[in-house]
Amino acid sequence: MTSLAMINAAAKRLKGHARVTPLLSSPFLDDLAKRRILVKAECLQHTGSFKFRGGWSALSALDKSARAKGVIAYSSGNHAQGVAHAATLHGVPSVIVMPSDAPQLKIENTRALGAEVILYDRASEDRDAIGLALASERDLTLIKPFDEPQVIAGQGTVGLEIAAQAAELGVTSGEVLVNCGGGGLTSGIALALEAQAPQMQVRTCEPDGFDDAARSLISGNIERNSRSSGSICDAILTPSPGEITFPIMKRLCGGGLVVSEDEALHAMALAFLRLKIVLEPGGAISLAAALFHGDELTSEVAIVVATGGNVDPVIFTEALRRFT
Amino acid sequence: MTSLAMINAAAKRLKGHARVTPLLSSPFLDDLAKRRILVKAECLQHTGSFKFRGGWSALSALDKSARAKGVIAYSSGNHAQGVAHAATLHGVPSVIVMPSDAPQLKIENTRALGAEVILYDRASEDRDAIGLALASERDLTLIKPFDEPQVIAGQGTVGLEIAAQAAELGVTSGEVLVNCGGGGLTSGIALALEAQAPQMQVRTCEPDGFDDAARSLISGNIERNSRSSGSICDAILTPSPGEITFPIMKRLCGGGLVVSEDEALHAMALAFLRLKIVLEPGGAISLAAALFHGDELTSEVAIVVATGGNVDPVIFTEALRRFT
Repeated sequence: MTSLAMINAAAKRLKGHARVTPLLSSPFLDDLAKRRILVKAECLQHTGSFKFRGGWSALSALDKSARAKGVIAYSSGNHAQGVAHAATLHGVPSVIVMPSDAPQLKIENTRALGAEVILYDRASEDRDAIGLALASERDLTLIKPFDEPQVIAGQGTVGLEIAAQAAELGVTSGEVLVNCGGGGLTSGIALALEAQAPQMQVRTCEPDGFDDAARSLISGNIERNSRSSGSICDAILTPSPGEITFPIMKRLCGGGLVVSEDEALHAMALAFLRLKIVLEPGGAISLAAALFHGDELTSEVAIVVATGGNVDPVIFTEALRRFT
Repeated sequence: MTSLAMINAAAKRLKGHARVTPLLSSPFLDDLAKRRILVKAECLQHTGSFKFRGGWSALSALDKSARAKGVIAYSSGNHAQGVAHAATLHGVPSVIVMPSDAPQLKIENTRALGAEVILYDRASEDRDAIGLALASERDLTLIKPFDEPQVIAGQGTVGLEIAAQAAELGVTSGEVLVNCGGGGLTSGIALALEAQAPQMQVRTCEPDGFDDAARSLISGNIERNSRSSGSICDAILTPSPGEITFPIMKRLCGGGLVVSEDEALHAMALAFLRLKIVLEPGGAISLAAALFHGDELTSEVAIVVATGGNVDPVIFTEALRRFT
């Protein structure tokens, strides 16, 4: 179980390796949202998303002999790149199991970051079986994307930075809006803030039709999405919150926020215009919630975690065309 | 004359008001450039460019009674927004004299940041006469865009941050590539590095056809551009280096680098893909020089100052369409 001590220990291991990303703002966004908006720009993290933190935390927590044998991860996106880069920087091999229909650019990037990419056919092959066979054959350690205490601890370092950076601006309370897939980042930040900024509360942000976290927080049980694809917010289309992450979320998070894909694209365009950062749709949901769902917020300050920027240029161009 | 003491004093006045922008990097850019590339992301500064530093430095250096009467600046772009925002945050009025054919968005942004915008007709009116009349009538202080010691001192704080942030990464030498208009930023950074990182050398970066700094550094005299418009790099189309800035540049800078507009657009696309930041053409010249003119560099590390991100969405889209 992830504790504050584990998050603090992860922060020490990450120091000098992960970036302390800036907390950005713009008077134009404040005016639009009618409250103060602070944006934690994790798109500027290594590999373009917060996932590098969890990858580095997990890698650096392994004992040396296990680490030397290498790691394996399943991912078609940001977790793949985060783990691959963290492994390469540790000088150890990584194997990433990706669906053969993943975007070619993501496959190429993951390879370029030093991973061995194993492709499988989503329709006919079982990802877990392939992964388990490889892990056992080569004695690799599996790094799960969210339901893994050291990954949660790594993502939780975002919460430590938010508490410290907001305090420098005189902000000690507010709602912290987090894009939520399996809940690794959400639960890690919630644990960090419980200790470091107890007057801040985390709220999950999801796209329409993939609101498993919001529904789970209402029912008190882990609820599932009815589909697993069909959104431009590919970074956060996890079937449900995790077995480890959800109890933390249930204890600490406020109600979930749900936004439309158009609102996410609009938020991407405003982040381009006003903050000069690049967000992917799944990384802009939280900003969309702050800008367009202000009536569902209660605090004077909304702290938005902008989780990633690995977006297809065609989708980014569409956001600019429609919303600038 | 700007001194290190003035830059240090400006840094104290800017603390908590200007952002310490991050020093970014990507293994993909290092591979492409065949050397280590560090990118000082000043596009993430308040108002989207480094100009806020100079504006804040000049405003905060005025004596209180002069400041209370207000300031005036001539600018169609980044200096306008930097001065307007700095004045508004100081609670004093600002007047910005802009050409009536400036982009509507820049005029609106400058107004929204709190300035009174006075438009003039480039063809039939004399900007300086309008500005001087207004300044004298209302007792406003003129804040020049570059040939002003306190503005140079403010821009020089970028150099202090580069020296400190690079040292944290173990880097104490290299070439520092700076987009150069009138030379306020260039000379300020050069002065700061002379004291804080004497093994780093500043090199100016300009677009084809507007290489006044490069030619001035060769001849040893202030040379002028033959035209003052007709480039997408509008942020840095100054007719010549300044009377105050050039002697500093001449003493401290290496040879100037000149890149094409296409190379600037290509660099913008790579900054989007690999760094997740938004650059304007005039803000991407230095990155283009590092990526595409490596044979003109001599150091193992190139530190690129990415000076601004206030780009028209149409131009940004063109960069993505052609170079991603």
